[in-house]
Amino acid sequence: MCGIIGIYNHPEASKLAYLGLFAQQHRGQESAGIVSNSGDGFLQHHEMGMVADIFDQSVLARLKGNQAIGHVRYSTHGGSSIKNCQPLSVTYSRGSVAVAHNGNIVNGGELRKKFEEEGSIFQTSTDTEIIVHQLAKEKPANFVDRLKNTLPRLLGSFSLVFLTKTRMIAARDPWGFRPLAIGKKDETYVVASETCAFDLIGATYIRDVKPGEIVIFNEKGMESIFFSPEQPKKHCVFEYVYFARPDSLIYGNEVYDIRKRYGQMLAREAGIEADVVVPVPDSGLPAAIGYAQESGIPFEMGLIRNHYVGRTFIEPEQSIRSFGVRVKLNPSHKTLKGKRVILIDDSLVRGTTSQKIIKMVREAGAKEVHLRISSPPTSWPCFYGIDTPSKRELISSSKSIEEIRDYIQADSLAYLSHESLFSFDPERGPKEFCSACFTGEYAVDRESILNHIARDELTV
Amino acid sequence: MCGIIGIYNHPEASKLAYLGLFAQQHRGQESAGIVSNSGDGFLQHHEMGMVADIFDQSVLARLKGNQAIGHVRYSTHGGSSIKNCQPLSVTYSRGSVAVAHNGNIVNGGELRKKFEEEGSIFQTSTDTEIIVHQLAKEKPANFVDRLKNTLPRLLGSFSLVFLTKTRMIAARDPWGFRPLAIGKKDETYVVASETCAFDLIGATYIRDVKPGEIVIFNEKGMESIFFSPEQPKKHCVFEYVYFARPDSLIYGNEVYDIRKRYGQMLAREAGIEADVVVPVPDSGLPAAIGYAQESGIPFEMGLIRNHYVGRTFIEPEQSIRSFGVRVKLNPSHKTLKGKRVILIDDSLVRGTTSQKIIKMVREAGAKEVHLRISSPPTSWPCFYGIDTPSKRELISSSKSIEEIRDYIQADSLAYLSHESLFSFDPERGPKEFCSACFTGEYAVDRESILNHIARDELTV
Amino acid sequence: MCGIIGIYNHPEASKLAYLGLFAQQHRGQESAGIVSNSGDGFLQHHEMGMVADIFDQSVLARLKGNQAIGHVRYSTHGGSSIKNCQPLSVTYSRGSVAVAHNGNIVNGGELRKKFEEEGSIFQTSTDTEIIVHQLAKEKPANFVDRLKNTLPRLLGSFSLVFLTKTRMIAARDPWGFRPLAIGKKDETYVVASETCAFDLIGATYIRDVKPGEIVIFNEKGMESIFFSPEQPKKHCVFEYVYFARPDSLIYGNEVYDIRKRYGQMLAREAGIEADVVVPVPDSGLPAAIGYAQESGIPFEMGLIRNHYVGRTFIEPEQSIRSFGVRVKLNPSHKTLKGKRVILIDDSLVRGTTSQKIIKMVREAGAKEVHLRISSPPTSWPCFYGIDTPSKRELISSSKSIEEIRDYIQADSLAYLSHESLFSFDPERGPKEFCSACFTGEYAVDRESILNHIARDELTV
Amino acid sequence: MCGIIGIYNHPEASKLAYLGLFAQQHRGQESAGIVSNSGDGFLQHHEMGMVADIFDQSVLARLKGNQAIGHVRYSTHGGSSIKNCQPLSVTYSRGSVAVAHNGNIVNGGELRKKFEEEGSIFQTSTDTEIIVHQLAKEKPANFVDRLKNTLPRLLGSFSLVFLTKTRMIAARDPWGFRPLAIGKKDETYVVASETCAFDLIGATYIRDVKPGEIVIFNEKGMESIFFSPEQPKKHCVFEYVYFARPDSLIYGNEVYDIRKRYGQMLAREAGIEADVVVPVPDSGLPAAIGYAQESGIPFEMGLIRNHYVGRTFIEPEQSIRSFGVRVKLNPSHKTLKGKRVILIDDSLVRGTTSQKIIKMVREAGAKEVHLRISSPPTSWPCFYGIDTPSKRELISSSKSIEEIRDYIQADSLAYLSHESLFSFDPERGPKEFCSACFTGEYAVDRESILNHIARDELTV
Repeated sequence: MCGIIGIYNHPEASKLAYLGLFAQQHRGQESAGIVSNSGDGFLQHHEMGMVADIFDQSVLARLKGNQAIGHVRYSTHGGSSIKNCQPLSVTYSRGSVAVAHNGNIVNGGELRKKFEEEGSIFQTSTDTEIIVHQLAKEKPANFVDRLKNTLPRLLGSFSLVFLTKTRMIAARDPWGFRPLAIGKKDETYVVASETCAFDLIGATYIRDVKPGEIVIFNEKGMESIFFSPEQPKKHCVFEYVYFARPDSLIYGNEVYDIRKRYGQMLAREAGIEADVVVPVPDSGLPAAIGYAQESGIPFEMGLIRNHYVGRTFIEPEQSIRSFGVRVKLNPSHKTLKGKRVILIDDSLVRGTTSQKIIKMVREAGAKEVHLRISSPPTSWPCFYGIDTPSKRELISSSKSIEEIRDYIQADSLAYLSHESLFSFDPERGPKEFCSACFTGEYAVDRESILNHIARDELTV
Repeated sequence: MCGIIGIYNHPEASKLAYLGLFAQQHRGQESAGIVSNSGDGFLQHHEMGMVADIFDQSVLARLKGNQAIGHVRYSTHGGSSIKNCQPLSVTYSRGSVAVAHNGNIVNGGELRKKFEEEGSIFQTSTDTEIIVHQLAKEKPANFVDRLKNTLPRLLGSFSLVFLTKTRMIAARDPWGFRPLAIGKKDETYVVASETCAFDLIGATYIRDVKPGEIVIFNEKGMESIFFSPEQPKKHCVFEYVYFARPDSLIYGNEVYDIRKRYGQMLAREAGIEADVVVPVPDSGLPAAIGYAQESGIPFEMGLIRNHYVGRTFIEPEQSIRSFGVRVKLNPSHKTLKGKRVILIDDSLVRGTTSQKIIKMVREAGAKEVHLRISSPPTSWPCFYGIDTPSKRELISSSKSIEEIRDYIQADSLAYLSHESLFSFDPERGPKEFCSACFTGEYAVDRESILNHIARDELTV
Repeated sequence: MCGIIGIYNHPEASKLAYLGLFAQQHRGQESAGIVSNSGDGFLQHHEMGMVADIFDQSVLARLKGNQAIGHVRYSTHGGSSIKNCQPLSVTYSRGSVAVAHNGNIVNGGELRKKFEEEGSIFQTSTDTEIIVHQLAKEKPANFVDRLKNTLPRLLGSFSLVFLTKTRMIAARDPWGFRPLAIGKKDETYVVASETCAFDLIGATYIRDVKPGEIVIFNEKGMESIFFSPEQPKKHCVFEYVYFARPDSLIYGNEVYDIRKRYGQMLAREAGIEADVVVPVPDSGLPAAIGYAQESGIPFEMGLIRNHYVGRTFIEPEQSIRSFGVRVKLNPSHKTLKGKRVILIDDSLVRGTTSQKIIKMVREAGAKEVHLRISSPPTSWPCFYGIDTPSKRELISSSKSIEEIRDYIQADSLAYLSHESLFSFDPERGPKEFCSACFTGEYAVDRESILNHIARDELTV
Repeated sequence: MCGIIGIYNHPEASKLAYLGLFAQQHRGQESAGIVSNSGDGFLQHHEMGMVADIFDQSVLARLKGNQAIGHVRYSTHGGSSIKNCQPLSVTYSRGSVAVAHNGNIVNGGELRKKFEEEGSIFQTSTDTEIIVHQLAKEKPANFVDRLKNTLPRLLGSFSLVFLTKTRMIAARDPWGFRPLAIGKKDETYVVASETCAFDLIGATYIRDVKPGEIVIFNEKGMESIFFSPEQPKKHCVFEYVYFARPDSLIYGNEVYDIRKRYGQMLAREAGIEADVVVPVPDSGLPAAIGYAQESGIPFEMGLIRNHYVGRTFIEPEQSIRSFGVRVKLNPSHKTLKGKRVILIDDSLVRGTTSQKIIKMVREAGAKEVHLRISSPPTSWPCFYGIDTPSKRELISSSKSIEEIRDYIQADSLAYLSHESLFSFDPERGPKEFCSACFTGEYAVDRESILNHIARDELTV
């Protein structure tokens, strides 16, 4: 997962981009970068690490120009290297172009192989480089025309923001997998993965870039064209479940509100008698509030989160006991002691963390621990941009709910129903959202995904 | 404010000290230090900055020894310098001693003047150096005897942990102003400002160091003596209001539980009709839960906190609008729009932050904003270790509640009553706690404090 | 200018590469990088800055493998960016390849344009990327065959070392512009720009990679093939004049010895009566020794160099006088006072530094200052890998010797004759060396160079 | 050894101090610090490391004021800690004082013990703290009077520069062990250990602070008083032999000139037939020039120094051969091959480095290697400020010249005679200089030094 930002027409564009990245830091902590358009060429700065550590006054002062795009990158399994930092900035026959990308091109491997066979070289392990290779091979003289030719060749998810010599251009895949919003602040246009970036900059949300749309920002304002006929929408529902900040509007809905609703539905579907409802902070918080409101059972912050986690932290040697989740979470004992506790978490992936938390809650004196998950069982890996483990690492893919309950040592375990996942719009939700991580119903490039999963299973 | 840690008898003492400081990072972010006893002399490392940035494997590996003490220091107005970092380690006629101190010696200025007149030099602007000067002037051969002579001379607050050649020694002022707890983990003794440090290390809370007590940790275990006859206790109630982590036991009570109770009392005392109860995160959270439970008005996370704040952050130039509190907090609009909102915060000091938050909540669409403060008006500066502004900067010292309400532009404003502050123990609370910041009733060295305040008022 | 290193078959290959780069630090201080072959893929680390600051134990420990190549990069006018750091590592249809390059491809612009027209993208502004693009477009299955096809297309200078999945491969342009030497240490092969790298590693110099040669290092040892028929050699004579370390063998000759000879020839050609011969340290040192020996005039270190220059240094504001060359050089007054001084420098480029040094020497009390340059006037820019200013910035390109003397305020000025430049081998020297920077006789791609110079002149 | 600087009356005093420290970096690379007098209190910055890395524009901008003092500290055996960084800045009954010290108080241990017995504490392991303790105990109201009382109590070497609220004060021990010079630049006074600091700042050397003198810089200019009756001078001759920069004036003589003279005397006293004279760079350079001039044997740079040494450098693991001196020095082979070589070094301490260099010179093909040392055998440790090893580590203290020759594997070995050490002033030299490191004739506090040496010998 990643976060992107684009600023068009502001004398301190790189500073706004910096703020936009800071607000979206949760979308990627591995590296960050900004490319600005000085009018006289692109200027760039990339580094491994966190936004506030990478950019300082002197770096931002050097990134002159009225236009800038930026990117925060998530830590992925391999390939963690300065070379993979975005935005990617290249020159080709038409001059220079820079791009920031959030998403995953499912047919990227195929395209990469094709380009390599044609004699292309790759300097990164990102999908983004594939997009740029295709762009450079297109013949039309106009950038937008080349883009219109390029994007339909890509299967998968892509929310993109480009910088060219004179324009900023945003685009989104035909299914609308990943979010991409447009904001405005006086005469400045802003494009961001999440609207929380607008709030920090002081911009106002206008609308989303639409699936299949290319939006061009130039001196005349904002122009829109479509590179793809209408497709069934496939918005990622996991942005609601876990990824986005609760104060962001995603696909036009406020995330906090939807998460709270998930908690309410969970209380209806999987209610149980108990003394307290306790969130696993911070992501389980809105659902726990919803659950508590619906059930009437008191909401309590029974687990306290250490604010300073996230910074590099040295774990002591083996002679000191394994910390488990203690570095991050610690119980407020009195709230838990002797209580029947309903723990609310947003998802359950491998089960190891839940196991440790439940142990900690029991050690704090809880009489019963009932785990409620505000999403359905995650049984399938994501191929559309969320960095999930492989199928066999997903505990739900091989174990029944009862087996999982036993593994994590909960008194009871229940998940949100698949229906309730779309309770915010029961009619259009199931049609317009991708929930493949829960169902395995991969809507785009299904065959190659299933082949990939099958191969992966064999390599166990 | 500061946090201290001491480890006695563990082969990786400095690593446990590091963990103990990490857990107490909220007590001081300006600098941190650890001194270990290698058996062959003291080893030390101090730096400006955050615990996780200062210590890495190689630094901790160098800090060998079975005993170690550590300190995190709060950013204070002046005198922010590497020289003031603690623990302070000195040599004197009896060898070496190191000390970490949480507190403030009210008669420190006097003592300092006296020592200077006797020809002493001071290399720091800390009170701690005064304590060590007195220790060095004492005649008895035994360290503990010197300490018994030294401590009664000090008026004010001090929770101390010392390292000598062979022992670790903890001590607490006769009034018990600041917390200091003893924990144990197998054969290892741990001393810490807050018990959350024990939780991370895996130690168990035994008891507090008592007011007026000196606790000696040596090869025989733990010994206790008293350097002062019994005094009326004066525990700092502000640790409950704001300072301590909610998951810590302070003076034997869980902070979360007390804060929630404050919210409940506030609901009874200053209830008002509204649609939602919203905490100012994170410190207002437990009280907001209590208020919501007591009032039956739904609790909502209407303000979302950015996790990454705390890191250095560059504010953009004047051409970009002032950020106010946006960098730290952002509203979840749907929760607030059209609602009558009760905002819960732990305290109101200068009023400027509350003013900005209320403005932000209104801009998010709130119909009414009622601010409820889960402590009484803070009208008096603290001289016992909490870093508060001077009297004239405290808005409550010069404005009536109605005037403050008008200044912060709330629809209504109410504070917790002074009585309810001790609702957790109505009988002993008012007697055994210091609430001078609310009442001006300074129990220790009252006269010199009032003189100081008077002088300060005149310099306006 | 740059320096390269390659290590084949050593369990600590990256550490040897590090040492080889450290020894060649003078060839480039802007950035450094190492790519190792872990057997399971390439590992890499690049950073802006100096070798000893970039690599530490933990970085080198991560760069596992028996083979490694490295690169130090010179600070160039524009395009100073992490993206341009070498070695360049890419994937293409045949897998992965990494390359370190010292040199300059004169027809690089043309090739780049051609590739861009064919749809290629470029992520750096280096020539090296062009080489890799061509390699990737070649059809033969074998890497060496692709290389044999690629290299003849390149006009200009290139000393290269490649890492492939199983081999290390070195190559040098048909004219032998830049040096490239092969060394051996037990079963380990080493390739380096300069033999001083062998000395530090403990390897023995075997021979140079020959012009037009490809040398393959594999499990059978060292194999040689030629990609080009024999060409007239064009070794860069400026390596002797200034660039290489005096203790290196370059093209088989020791640099110190040649520089001393230049000083001797200069004394014969341009002797003058004086009291002392003083080098401009450190590069003028060997020639000054030669001059003094030949002339019988005493050699003196009349200018002392500050060892710590090279580190970043903050110049104070305008209120403090301009430092000129003082930060780097300071006179030993007694040596200069009242003396007729012959100053020896290796070359004279813009004239500004010489002017400042002569002023400083006069201020130290010298009666006369005679500047002798141990190379001919530098009137032409280099297009074969040395980073010289444009023609119009070269003082000799527009001013007569007398005009230059007047500009720098010397009592007399003389240069080494062009003949003496080859005095180390009067017969083959003039034929086998490139001295285009002195003569304008560009041997390779002459026309495009002259066009480039002409265009450049017009833009004044 | 250390270097000090003081600036009085310049609007950018801290920047000039920075330049003065940069010029004197060779006197101490462990740490550096500057204290400025803002008019409104002292401002300070200290760090471990090199001057150019510690101070940047923002740090210097913070160190406001018209007066500043600075210090570079040499790496010593133990006690390498931020706490020992100078200048030392303290408060005492009379306000604030800061001091930078170059030297060693021989009776420091005694004084320290006395102070500790009187109840003083010590926070550093420096002698400097002792001086300040004594100052603080003095009764007179005037700082200079207190200083006049304090300094006569100190036995040993001290060149000092103090900053008080309104003045800068320099002082030097009655024997004049360590250098201390006064310079002027317009209305600004500068005090420095070496005059090379004046050259960089653009100040002019006026005179030395005299032995036993206190020089006060105030708004009226420069005042002088003496705290001690005239004593036999004991200037450290080792500053000439090795420590100072050759371009500095020390005790009014230029170091380069004296070192060259040492080489000339050595040629006369210990001439031998040979082909080349080769210095061990850089400290052996002037003497080698002198030797070559006197003997008529050609001077050659047969050993080349790597400029980049001094930076932190990671030595590779045991699997790679020991580097010995290779990282620092490398031979120019042709100069040495088949030659009878006279190597000139400034001193021979433990013998291990000479052994390695001679081995390297032989491996480069030298037929004979004759080592000539431009100072007498160093047989006694220094107690007056030079950081030498203990007596038993000094090879000359236990081995005859022939035994040393055998140990280092030279064909011959000779030292400069003790007489020639003073050849620059044969009459006053032997009387006015300390050469205890060569003779054991400790002029100040002889008894306690001999006791110390005796104790030390016993602990072998």
